[in-house]
Amino acid sequence: MNLDALTRTSGEWLRGTGPESDIVICSRIRLARNLADFPFTNRASDAEKTEIERVCRSAMDKAGLDLDYQSLVNLGPLDRQLLVERQLVSRELSNGDGPRGVAIGPRENMSVMINEEDHLRIQVMNSGFSLPDVWEQINDLDDRLEEQLHYAFNPQLGYLTACPTNVGTGIRVGVMLHLPALANTKQIEKVFRALHKINLAVRGLYGEGTQADGDFYQISNQQTLGKSERELIRNLSDVIPQIISYERQARQEWIGQRRQHLHDQVSRAYGVLKTAHTISSSETMHLLSSVRMGINLGLIDDLEIRTVNELFIHTQPAHLQKIQGESLEVDERNIARAGYIRRRLLEGRHDDETAD
Amino acid sequence: MNLDALTRTSGEWLRGTGPESDIVICSRIRLARNLADFPFTNRASDAEKTEIERVCRSAMDKAGLDLDYQSLVNLGPLDRQLLVERQLVSRELSNGDGPRGVAIGPRENMSVMINEEDHLRIQVMNSGFSLPDVWEQINDLDDRLEEQLHYAFNPQLGYLTACPTNVGTGIRVGVMLHLPALANTKQIEKVFRALHKINLAVRGLYGEGTQADGDFYQISNQQTLGKSERELIRNLSDVIPQIISYERQARQEWIGQRRQHLHDQVSRAYGVLKTAHTISSSETMHLLSSVRMGINLGLIDDLEIRTVNELFIHTQPAHLQKIQGESLEVDERNIARAGYIRRRLLEGRHDDETAD
Repeated sequence: MNLDALTRTSGEWLRGTGPESDIVICSRIRLARNLADFPFTNRASDAEKTEIERVCRSAMDKAGLDLDYQSLVNLGPLDRQLLVERQLVSRELSNGDGPRGVAIGPRENMSVMINEEDHLRIQVMNSGFSLPDVWEQINDLDDRLEEQLHYAFNPQLGYLTACPTNVGTGIRVGVMLHLPALANTKQIEKVFRALHKINLAVRGLYGEGTQADGDFYQISNQQTLGKSERELIRNLSDVIPQIISYERQARQEWIGQRRQHLHDQVSRAYGVLKTAHTISSSETMHLLSSVRMGINLGLIDDLEIRTVNELFIHTQPAHLQKIQGESLEVDERNIARAGYIRRRLLEGRHDDETAD
Repeated sequence: MNLDALTRTSGEWLRGTGPESDIVICSRIRLARNLADFPFTNRASDAEKTEIERVCRSAMDKAGLDLDYQSLVNLGPLDRQLLVERQLVSRELSNGDGPRGVAIGPRENMSVMINEEDHLRIQVMNSGFSLPDVWEQINDLDDRLEEQLHYAFNPQLGYLTACPTNVGTGIRVGVMLHLPALANTKQIEKVFRALHKINLAVRGLYGEGTQADGDFYQISNQQTLGKSERELIRNLSDVIPQIISYERQARQEWIGQRRQHLHDQVSRAYGVLKTAHTISSSETMHLLSSVRMGINLGLIDDLEIRTVNELFIHTQPAHLQKIQGESLEVDERNIARAGYIRRRLLEGRHDDETAD
């Protein structure tokens, strides 16, 4: 597949459309599946992994799925990082070794990792708050694969997985939220405590252990056993509207009580992005977060959300280097990043933006 | 006189012309003089002060000087502060009491304070590095006044003054410099130590005790006794070119070694000024200082030095309130200041700027 083409789009998850898209970036479900006839990936030999890969690819072909396969063997670190930044593969798959790869759908809303922690990690994500759609799509995808594959399944435990935390449904349901007002007013800590109590996990944009750069938070289930997929999805679906409403309330209070302060922060963030000549990834995320909220609150009116969403991903290290067409050290990246942002914001629109 | 008219210009000292005007803001000389027939101001009654004022004004008239007299009695605090910000009167005169005032020349390059610490404080300032011109003008002004007034003069000590530090020539020779690169690279401390050793004082923009907001530094003589006026002027004139050369060197090293960093700082400063919705006076000075240097180094090409110089003074609290036509609290001023700066920078040019 042509990885360079990826850098010209934002992918599905940053499309900026769908329900509640001012706050909900994307909805995502992944299923962990393993083949009954092979040892788990961490116990499998390279020969076995090659065979797993072959069996899975053949199954996807037979199922008539429109997926493009990319092996991670012999793929350079920049290209692997690119796939991580686009949320198409996990850090684990990127940094792993031996035969492994990912099958990607045409709009990047579907991906199937092969030989990650589990033999198959099936993922579907849609822009906005749309878990029922995502479930429908991934359930269909899973059914079509299961017709071709012999999954490791125990009638009592459910799907068997390499790590016991995934046993059962093997499902992880996640929603990525943009929560700048809750973060700024420190109310987010309270939200987190409440979520932990009901067994929901909160993480930053790039998974466990990463900071919430850009005020992006992924909220997902921790439980996989003892409840049905639909129940787990409903659990999360029930709580998200409350968080959305807290964030909206925090924004309105902020704008009501300290409108000038908020307007100042948003406007300066936009000003710095348009003028900086060197900028780190972290500062970029921080400023883009303010600008994104500013657009949603009507404080900035000459910029589209989609441009901001694209900048979030195009300014990540690997994307930036792919776009520049060369490998760059940190200092060079910071300069290139600032130049890229200036061009995008002063041009106003990306070619692709007018496409749909 | 019409004080409101002042807010539409920058005054002589911020004209931004004259020799070395990229670094030398203005050159200034003031002479302290007292009338022989009256006690010093701090010992004079209001009746005596009134008489001193009358005698001095009459002398200025008879000498045919083109000066406009402004009494500070019954002048509101905002108008008094306006005169301080324009460097036309001292804080002492503004905050003093009893009959006192200032006579101001048409381009604001001349002013004569009456009943400050001394009966007369004569001042001439020109934009740029031009002490010989300033001396010629103030010497002529002093001579013409002396023809009409009986100065307190002792053949051995020279001119007598209320404070012994001014006895002798009664002269203070000062040059205001913009030294952002020396300040930024901390080399300025070394310069200060060297200046103190040769009896030169360093102060911020608004006199003793004020911080060097905007990286503006006034360098002036401390000695007034035992040397002639010309010697004291020469002492200062000899050292200023060295400081100018240090500043130029510091700028060139900065731009040579860390061009992107410098460009970034300058460009962001300009960006924030164009977009902020609330901004303090101190931050404004700091950012304008970067922008001013950026223009001089060719890093900003769509803005004139004179606009920046005007912003330095028009964003001061009293100027801002006069321009807005109302008295404002600090928070309101910060909002009004940000709005004023945005308008000026986005309009690009002030009406008066094209005048000469």
